[in-house]
Amino acid sequence: MTRTPTPAPSVEALRHVVDGRWANVRDETREQMGRYGLAADPDFTSEQYRAWVLEALKPLIASGRPLTGFDPSVGGQGDVGGVVTSFAMLAYGDLSLLVKAGVQWGLFGGAVQVLGTSRHHEKYLRKIIDGELLGCFAMTETGHGSDVQHLHTTATYDRATEEFVIDTPHPGARKDYIGNAARDGRMAVVFAQLHVGEKSPGVHAFLVPLRDENGTVLPGVEVTDDGRKAGLNGVDNGRLAFAGVRVPRENLLNHFADVAADGTYSSSIDNETARFFTMLGTLVRGRISVAGGAGAAAQKALTLAVRYGEQRRQFSDPSSGEEIAVLDYLAHQRKLLPALATSYAMQFAQDDLVARMHEIQAPGKPAVGAREQRRLEQSAAGIKAIATWHATATIQTCREACGGAGYLEENLLPALKADTDVFTTFEGDNTVLLQLLAKELLSDYGRTIKKGNPLGIAPLLGRQLASVGAERTGLASLPRRVPGVSPDITDRRRRSTLLQVRRDDTLATAIRTLAPAMRKGNDEFTVFNSAQDLLLTAARAHVDAVVEESFRNAVERATESREGGTSTDTDPQVRALLERVYDLHVLSVIDRERAWYLETGRLTAAESRRIRPLVNELCAELRPHARLLVDAFGIPEAWLSAPMLDGPAPLPTAAGVADVVTAG
Amino acid sequence: MTRTPTPAPSVEALRHVVDGRWANVRDETREQMGRYGLAADPDFTSEQYRAWVLEALKPLIASGRPLTGFDPSVGGQGDVGGVVTSFAMLAYGDLSLLVKAGVQWGLFGGAVQVLGTSRHHEKYLRKIIDGELLGCFAMTETGHGSDVQHLHTTATYDRATEEFVIDTPHPGARKDYIGNAARDGRMAVVFAQLHVGEKSPGVHAFLVPLRDENGTVLPGVEVTDDGRKAGLNGVDNGRLAFAGVRVPRENLLNHFADVAADGTYSSSIDNETARFFTMLGTLVRGRISVAGGAGAAAQKALTLAVRYGEQRRQFSDPSSGEEIAVLDYLAHQRKLLPALATSYAMQFAQDDLVARMHEIQAPGKPAVGAREQRRLEQSAAGIKAIATWHATATIQTCREACGGAGYLEENLLPALKADTDVFTTFEGDNTVLLQLLAKELLSDYGRTIKKGNPLGIAPLLGRQLASVGAERTGLASLPRRVPGVSPDITDRRRRSTLLQVRRDDTLATAIRTLAPAMRKGNDEFTVFNSAQDLLLTAARAHVDAVVEESFRNAVERATESREGGTSTDTDPQVRALLERVYDLHVLSVIDRERAWYLETGRLTAAESRRIRPLVNELCAELRPHARLLVDAFGIPEAWLSAPMLDGPAPLPTAAGVADVVTAG
Repeated sequence: MTRTPTPAPSVEALRHVVDGRWANVRDETREQMGRYGLAADPDFTSEQYRAWVLEALKPLIASGRPLTGFDPSVGGQGDVGGVVTSFAMLAYGDLSLLVKAGVQWGLFGGAVQVLGTSRHHEKYLRKIIDGELLGCFAMTETGHGSDVQHLHTTATYDRATEEFVIDTPHPGARKDYIGNAARDGRMAVVFAQLHVGEKSPGVHAFLVPLRDENGTVLPGVEVTDDGRKAGLNGVDNGRLAFAGVRVPRENLLNHFADVAADGTYSSSIDNETARFFTMLGTLVRGRISVAGGAGAAAQKALTLAVRYGEQRRQFSDPSSGEEIAVLDYLAHQRKLLPALATSYAMQFAQDDLVARMHEIQAPGKPAVGAREQRRLEQSAAGIKAIATWHATATIQTCREACGGAGYLEENLLPALKADTDVFTTFEGDNTVLLQLLAKELLSDYGRTIKKGNPLGIAPLLGRQLASVGAERTGLASLPRRVPGVSPDITDRRRRSTLLQVRRDDTLATAIRTLAPAMRKGNDEFTVFNSAQDLLLTAARAHVDAVVEESFRNAVERATESREGGTSTDTDPQVRALLERVYDLHVLSVIDRERAWYLETGRLTAAESRRIRPLVNELCAELRPHARLLVDAFGIPEAWLSAPMLDGPAPLPTAAGVADVVTAG
Repeated sequence: MTRTPTPAPSVEALRHVVDGRWANVRDETREQMGRYGLAADPDFTSEQYRAWVLEALKPLIASGRPLTGFDPSVGGQGDVGGVVTSFAMLAYGDLSLLVKAGVQWGLFGGAVQVLGTSRHHEKYLRKIIDGELLGCFAMTETGHGSDVQHLHTTATYDRATEEFVIDTPHPGARKDYIGNAARDGRMAVVFAQLHVGEKSPGVHAFLVPLRDENGTVLPGVEVTDDGRKAGLNGVDNGRLAFAGVRVPRENLLNHFADVAADGTYSSSIDNETARFFTMLGTLVRGRISVAGGAGAAAQKALTLAVRYGEQRRQFSDPSSGEEIAVLDYLAHQRKLLPALATSYAMQFAQDDLVARMHEIQAPGKPAVGAREQRRLEQSAAGIKAIATWHATATIQTCREACGGAGYLEENLLPALKADTDVFTTFEGDNTVLLQLLAKELLSDYGRTIKKGNPLGIAPLLGRQLASVGAERTGLASLPRRVPGVSPDITDRRRRSTLLQVRRDDTLATAIRTLAPAMRKGNDEFTVFNSAQDLLLTAARAHVDAVVEESFRNAVERATESREGGTSTDTDPQVRALLERVYDLHVLSVIDRERAWYLETGRLTAAESRRIRPLVNELCAELRPHARLLVDAFGIPEAWLSAPMLDGPAPLPTAAGVADVVTAG
């Protein structure tokens, strides 16, 4: 390796860049929450753990953080981005607490805020913020998780009493996996098919009391406990069934649609599907929060594994007789360092996503069009899927990298793995989310901005693509190859281009495959099903490019501010290190997808064979900075207390070993 | 798709082939153990779960199965293969019970059997078999898990009293993660560095009492509890430290080495390293058992996920309005069916491995040479690594494929995931095992059959390869490309060849990279470390080829017996179906590695692009048989009781949907 070693910035300088737009919120959260141990006893029964989490909500309420996310009209600051950023940091501590808080303030409180109107805000929001009224977000049913537009719970308007009657028509229509339902929730936002007179205008949300002040379940409500789960056992998930439960007409959350006393239905959005997805769209915050929580959990796992990998020694160096730190083995570096680089990438992508959400959702921001809102939903869906899969894979790798120690609960990795595992399938199943994203990309491509059914993609897209095919005879003009362009993978700009090319090409391939099939009048399900893997590939490639762009911009921002000489981000060592982390991330993506690049002629065999040694070189170069890179996440030390790290002091780094080797 | 649909054999006919050599043992085990619920309460505290598992050992003892694995001299049948096969099936039930049984009879009892002599057999084996004497296998230390040749516990011979004195010199030398240690074990086989007079002939095994009849820990022994783990909480793992614990001279397990009363040391194997690895080699059964348990756990996860995927419906078919079974979606098929095909492959590979072990280890079999023994160890290391990673990935996929239901403990997938997770790092860390295998392959290649230090590969191999390089100037004659041979991936024989080519080429690449570097006299650690990924690739490719060969032979056996017309395996429908499962397995391996095939010119881009649609076609063809394929594993229904499967009856299969589609 001829490259000059990357110089090391200070952890503070690096952290400042990593912390991003809500750096102050991050620092406050570290200060406010980092002082609490947040270490639940791993041998807790579910009941004990639930009680512990309920208690742990109190310091969170006392911090005032939940309030900051709500509108100024109820005393908040409308700091939508800040509260999501702070929320995700709870994943550094206890994930059951994170999810319990997310259910209470994000899902339940959030639904009241954005789907309700002043009558609901005035009556409930303060109590929700202060934790006096704990509630549920009751959308998913046993029979309908992904296809929630077709859930079966009903809300029938009774004009005589001016009430809605909530019913669970069959066991498959039970609300299921509902947080706060089994033990603590006193009220739920229940999503149900509205029936009013002759009309059935689709799914609407209703406030339904579940328990009285003493916690006794109310008549007509049936609660069952989901029981022990793989993880998150501090959250009381349960099932809710309703038998003729009556709520006042005012309990309809009526921001988008209302029912007058006489049973007249009105809505600002005529189309039922459009209305439903507009309602859902306002709830995008939950999905973004899960992505953030997943990212933080992966960072914690990497912090534990890197620290352990520096001090754990196994097998002797034959020249020195000294045992070698396991992180000095190439195989170990290849397990942890590309994952660490990707965690940096996800951090910047998440920060950008949160900022975009903030610009759209924070009070006082100018209203944006449906297209901008939909783009936010696309990004949220894609990044949620990729961030949660990244977390699951990374935490698994970190567990294995710590061997037997990583299997003990005292060393924190088992809970990280078990608790985050459900992230890949809740707040939208990842596979379904990527299909949703792919559909939107196809839809954008066809310039048909009609709002459709994003989850059941087949019906709408069939028509759209048929027209795309008719309008564009020049499909072959889509970029397929760039003859003569030999993308040199040692060049940073070329690598970035490779990700963009893949994004465009995979989408073009999906269109090229689907459009003719649709024009032939084939069955829609068969056509789309046979191309499902192409759609998922296109969506994945799109997110890879989005994430790369965020990371690239973050590096460029650091560069610009240095050259401008006016910012605090001017540490050239931060920039130099970030560039190498960026390189490793991008190169690992190309490495993962190199079969595609070879199949499409975007890389030659010789170029592709260069990737492995390049990744190895980057791993060697970043190895001495591994500890710094994880420390820059700024996870409170109180939340990293693992006996496996109390071993012998971490002595020589790779550089040190190299010295020994040279001397030997 | 023009292919004629594969006809369906009966589940019994298929199961008979899948059950393999120990089909009768499998049937007996189903009958003996399948009647027990084996459903531990997921909300058990560790203490409750440990008590439950201890109780669950009783029916196992009553079945007489543990006895069958021991030598006829103590009343057993020496059915080494049968007992390992039966043991692995406990993974269909409760994995803590499997591991507890494995510790007691496989590791503890097995060590007494193979490392001890008649004085130990007569005194202890009956009690061990009957569960009267529960014991531990105390090898791993906090500081040394992979590099066990260099563990730090000491056993010093005191000639005056004719005793060994066992000591833990520092906290890192504590025995750690030891099953049966925290609660139930009364004795341990302790591995320690022997010091006798001036001599220190390396690691030997000693029987050390831990607790008295009442369960009170004996003086000088310190037991600490490893506490809650990610899974396997029915097993009482703990740490053992010894302070001057004295055991009689006869407690040395003296099959391979002995100390006379006067302190004279003797051994049938002069070389210390060779002796240690010969001792370790006899314990290969544990590694093979873990591979079997992992395979069974993956089969159970697939059984649950396939059954759920057939009955879970989400989103409507636009032509019929009927909701579609999720297993009819291509994306869902691609998650589950290649993993199912690979589970078939692993089942046949495991059966072959067990048979080879049986031929070497069962009493009365002719003695085999060191080379044959070493080949068994190679295969065991490789298959254990691949089987456990396959299990971890497959169970994770199955959990996700069942969505929220898969996250509930009542649906069995969470325990499967958590319990098997440690399999990738115990009984040999997978990454270390694959390096061991790669080293042996290099060693075989160089025809240097010298027995060395298989775990610390650098020192020995350095010398070996330098000589390889010197002896063979014709390294370029290693097969690199076969010009003019265009491997048609639609051809079954060509695909098989592709796996063999990869096995040979990746090994050649490793040799070609390492040999010149070693000849230049470079530092051994640096040279080997920089090629670690090549070594792991070569090992993986080797195992892929071994597994493929087992599967191919199983299919061929079915064919031959059909043509001979004399066997019960003559169902042509079984053969036809197995061939397609085989095709899907092999094609998925090529799919996974297609970047390598493209980089080396073994596949053209056009050939590589054919793989995706071929996998899709195979998935569509096997979809109607998915239920049959999982039912053929023959998992007792009592162990598959999951509420998520009590949903609506599984109605139309893919074929049914296709009918609807055609009509619509």
